[in-house]
Amino acid sequence: MSASQRTARKRVVIVGMGFGGMHAARELAGSQCEVLLLDRNNYHLFQPLLYQVATAGLEQESIAYPLRALIRNWYNLQFQMREVTGLDLDGKRVLTDKGAVEYDYLILAGGSVTNFFGNAGVARHAFDLKRLADAERLRNAILTTFELAVQEADAQKKRELLTFVVVGGGPTGVEFAGALAELIRYVFRKDYPSLRLAESRVVLLEAAPTLLGAMPERLRRYAGQRLQQMGVEVRCNTLVADASEGEVRLGSGEIIASRTLFWSAGVKAAPLADLVPGTKGPGGRVPVQPDLSLPGHDEVYVVGDMACVLHNGAPLPMMAPAAMQQGRHVARSIICRERGETAEPFRYFDKGSMATIGRSSAVATAFGLSCSGFVAWLVWLFLHLYYLIGFRNRVVVLLNWAWYYWFHERQVRLITADDKGNASGGADG
Amino acid sequence: MSASQRTARKRVVIVGMGFGGMHAARELAGSQCEVLLLDRNNYHLFQPLLYQVATAGLEQESIAYPLRALIRNWYNLQFQMREVTGLDLDGKRVLTDKGAVEYDYLILAGGSVTNFFGNAGVARHAFDLKRLADAERLRNAILTTFELAVQEADAQKKRELLTFVVVGGGPTGVEFAGALAELIRYVFRKDYPSLRLAESRVVLLEAAPTLLGAMPERLRRYAGQRLQQMGVEVRCNTLVADASEGEVRLGSGEIIASRTLFWSAGVKAAPLADLVPGTKGPGGRVPVQPDLSLPGHDEVYVVGDMACVLHNGAPLPMMAPAAMQQGRHVARSIICRERGETAEPFRYFDKGSMATIGRSSAVATAFGLSCSGFVAWLVWLFLHLYYLIGFRNRVVVLLNWAWYYWFHERQVRLITADDKGNASGGADG
Repeated sequence: MSASQRTARKRVVIVGMGFGGMHAARELAGSQCEVLLLDRNNYHLFQPLLYQVATAGLEQESIAYPLRALIRNWYNLQFQMREVTGLDLDGKRVLTDKGAVEYDYLILAGGSVTNFFGNAGVARHAFDLKRLADAERLRNAILTTFELAVQEADAQKKRELLTFVVVGGGPTGVEFAGALAELIRYVFRKDYPSLRLAESRVVLLEAAPTLLGAMPERLRRYAGQRLQQMGVEVRCNTLVADASEGEVRLGSGEIIASRTLFWSAGVKAAPLADLVPGTKGPGGRVPVQPDLSLPGHDEVYVVGDMACVLHNGAPLPMMAPAAMQQGRHVARSIICRERGETAEPFRYFDKGSMATIGRSSAVATAFGLSCSGFVAWLVWLFLHLYYLIGFRNRVVVLLNWAWYYWFHERQVRLITADDKGNASGGADG
Repeated sequence: MSASQRTARKRVVIVGMGFGGMHAARELAGSQCEVLLLDRNNYHLFQPLLYQVATAGLEQESIAYPLRALIRNWYNLQFQMREVTGLDLDGKRVLTDKGAVEYDYLILAGGSVTNFFGNAGVARHAFDLKRLADAERLRNAILTTFELAVQEADAQKKRELLTFVVVGGGPTGVEFAGALAELIRYVFRKDYPSLRLAESRVVLLEAAPTLLGAMPERLRRYAGQRLQQMGVEVRCNTLVADASEGEVRLGSGEIIASRTLFWSAGVKAAPLADLVPGTKGPGGRVPVQPDLSLPGHDEVYVVGDMACVLHNGAPLPMMAPAAMQQGRHVARSIICRERGETAEPFRYFDKGSMATIGRSSAVATAFGLSCSGFVAWLVWLFLHLYYLIGFRNRVVVLLNWAWYYWFHERQVRLITADDKGNASGGADG
């Protein structure tokens, strides 16, 4: 459908339905614009809880929400499952695997991918957590190492199987390390009574001098101490040089024998950013104007992890709250412009940040205040449930959390490998 | 560990943790025997609800139960995730991918696999439902055809995408066809408003003159009528000759253009049966003595779909109730023998059978009585919840069913493909 054949209603195309794209779409719902959402997946993924899928705490379905369920109630929203292959900014067209799409306004919200900083060994051997399939793969790997370890006679191999290396002391690394340590301590201890707790190790490596660098000193200390109490070996000032099958090599030359390496030490803009002409900022992010539009193309907006937005002189962190605010901002800007009003520049409102460490334990900052422990954990719980989309998802997630809280039990510890052959043995019926 | 090194306690090895193996294990829990469970998966799968996973009604995790959660409370049960590669019946050893295991008693409960009757075209192009991954794959395929169809300009290709062929009018075929028809009618109609309901077809093919051949005439007629009311094209006396990409060829030479072929027209004993010496019965099933032991090896039992057990002159159907009864029976036989008592021959108690057709609609027979409609549906619901293992699973399944019942909504309509590349476009963050 060409733009000329359409009605006078302006068409907004949103590429990527993460937090940025999703919040832009919600803001534009019911507006005078015709909105087309494009994503390669048919769901919105609640990435902050991926680590709980990876540690057998939640079923993957409970943190994803079908986009068609979202758009159903809005006559002006449309969704198409497509892969973007190019941008024709002068022709105002998005090129996709299923043909070109014309737009009047374009919102690019492709998010980010894991940054292995060009380290091929790490990229090949490490797990990361950006997509739903990543979380299932990591959960399968963790459970499989324990099933192998319990049958392993060789002490050295067993130790290698039961050593988990987590790289990156940001919120994702801290949350994953804590959840994994608790999985081992509370659940696996009962599942594998023949393995001693001391045989397994969770090692958290951070290149900087402290964990959670963006947090106040007191919370950083608290997080480090809590993790250590839970049995996590926290090693700051430690760089990873390389990884191979069964080995993680540190910058110092030290080798940690481990089969499972989890990498959360960096993100960079999604490959969609490469399709945008012009030089990129740090992390491959697209530099934007103060109103989040692309220089020279004020009908094209870039939001979320992909956008390099300066705040107090530094690029905004690649976090969900920034993406949500930006998504809403550009949607409102488009509505303003269509009314003939002038759009405001984007102003980031820092709501603070948080990380959960374990059961009843988290750190959080907000409005200059900071808290830790049970209260922070309750705040974390409430906010994550609030931002999770779909009432049914909230119920399932809450049910799982309550289960874990009271029974110390995580029931999604299934190895759902895809490579199950049709070989003999095992139950087929 | 060799048998001689062990204590005087006898070791029972159970291969396969489907319904037969699971019920044998539960019966042996707390007994004087040491019981080792082997399975290639780390969970018990509730196969009767696989079709609901495939039609976006349930998350896959809710119908699987971790075996280690099951054995945890019983000191005499052990589990090892292993693949059986051979049987040394004279040496009383099971050979596995991780070494040999000795036994005093062996229970073979490998279940069944889909029988394509040697038709290579069908085997390559058809979906089946035996394992958890099958259900996820089929759900992804169904959802993907709709996402493609909504963007397809060519009417012929669109029709091909929206045509679903179900082969086999037994309970699985009937349940799947009904659930798919309802998914399209209640959920996809709202998700894809631009597609007309009449454009999609669900065709149910059965080689015999009626559906549900094992059921009384009245129920067969009811099931056929209900399915047709729901928009399913029911064609009996119809054989499938072959299948290729986008085509299903019938015995009559007629070709149905369809991208999705679901095969539930036959099962056969799992490949584990091939490892048992001796000639096999129909469907590759292992002929057994009246006490379910292997002729010449009274310490080896075969139960469930793998066993060819005669009842009123015909082999028992390959169904969960038979497997459960047999599993419990052999477990009790072993306990009897260890007490020096004589084990009874197995007697099958026919509890009847049932199939759900859609919301508020099912057929059931029990104790010579038969019922259909809402009452049968309630019975079906209750029994499936009862036999589903794990309280949390029951809550999640009941929640999903209530959701669907009241809101006509199935929320697990996610395309969780594994082959998501790292290409540009789509939301990565």
